[in-house]
Amino acid sequence: MTPMIKQSSIEHFLDELASRNATPGGGSAAALMGAMGAALLSMVCNLTIGKAKYRDVEDELSAVLARTEQLRRELTQMIEEDVESFGAVMRAYAMPRQTQAESMLRTQAIQNALREAIQVPLRCCHVCREIIDLSAVVAQKGNSNLVSDAGVAALAAHAALRSGALNVMINLKAVSDRQFVASQVAELGELLSQASAATEACDQSVRKAMR
Amino acid sequence: MTPMIKQSSIEHFLDELASRNATPGGGSAAALMGAMGAALLSMVCNLTIGKAKYRDVEDELSAVLARTEQLRRELTQMIEEDVESFGAVMRAYAMPRQTQAESMLRTQAIQNALREAIQVPLRCCHVCREIIDLSAVVAQKGNSNLVSDAGVAALAAHAALRSGALNVMINLKAVSDRQFVASQVAELGELLSQASAATEACDQSVRKAMR
Repeated sequence: MTPMIKQSSIEHFLDELASRNATPGGGSAAALMGAMGAALLSMVCNLTIGKAKYRDVEDELSAVLARTEQLRRELTQMIEEDVESFGAVMRAYAMPRQTQAESMLRTQAIQNALREAIQVPLRCCHVCREIIDLSAVVAQKGNSNLVSDAGVAALAAHAALRSGALNVMINLKAVSDRQFVASQVAELGELLSQASAATEACDQSVRKAMR
Repeated sequence: MTPMIKQSSIEHFLDELASRNATPGGGSAAALMGAMGAALLSMVCNLTIGKAKYRDVEDELSAVLARTEQLRRELTQMIEEDVESFGAVMRAYAMPRQTQAESMLRTQAIQNALREAIQVPLRCCHVCREIIDLSAVVAQKGNSNLVSDAGVAALAAHAALRSGALNVMINLKAVSDRQFVASQVAELGELLSQASAATEACDQSVRKAMR
């Protein structure tokens, strides 16, 4: 069994990312950016809950914390899942294609693997969309000494979302079902435009709080 | 001696980021985002150099690779440096202030530590500005199968730059030298607006290449 990426050191992960192996790549980097965003929101919640000044928002931020920890676990898992789904695509491309029957089986396997491989970055996008919204709540209601950390969380989640979208799109390039491609592109477009607006609104409120 | 963060596992780093300790925080997360951007550019260069199809750009991308590896090392170092400089600010705030002399010494120490603490995220911003420019080169000239990774590199570096800027600004909030603050804010504003334009241009070219 391959050791889990999450158990490797940061230095080793960066070396692997930089190496001439195609995995881990941008999909895993996106998931880790998102996980850092979730973790930073958890930190701000942890440093707000229990303080007298913030008693009014304690219940709300406790609920946010439970959610950010859940999303962090999901994104940490996606660091590995992206590598696995890329491996499945590569295995499909490596299938024999000497006869017409083999060629058809291979084409079908590639198409299935590509559709599967799209699922991980697409889930990364949806999870990061939620992290951006939670960043705005934490920036507004959390410990004001840490408002920049809530701001970093939104920026990290937004970069992760946009990165996930690039990973969906590069896989869609080889998908032959045009209707499926069109529906995915439309879904992504909606997600990207909502996320941009939400991130800039959060960033504005963070900067205002630091003036 | 405290163990180096870069030697801790990704899972442990995320746990520490999420914990009720103020460090590591957004500054370290920003440096790691930037380091991932540099690492992804190194990967694309590594998977371009030596391929017959890309012989014309081999020398140029070899030079880019040397540079992205250097910037990756600097950013990896900043993951630690951000924690250290925050520690120095905290130690200054913890100085005694029972007499007027103590109070004056403490104020001076806080101001010095804040100015020092700004240097790490400010360097992160400048280094990430360079990574964004290198992303555009790699997206244009590197292995086209990996163009999405060059795109992720630009997005990661841009998020790191914006995050670094938030960390500079939250420290500037407590700096009393208004002239120094104004000059830093102006420098950041210039950097942020150049970086936004360069990132969006790179993103457009990446998306175009994937159509």
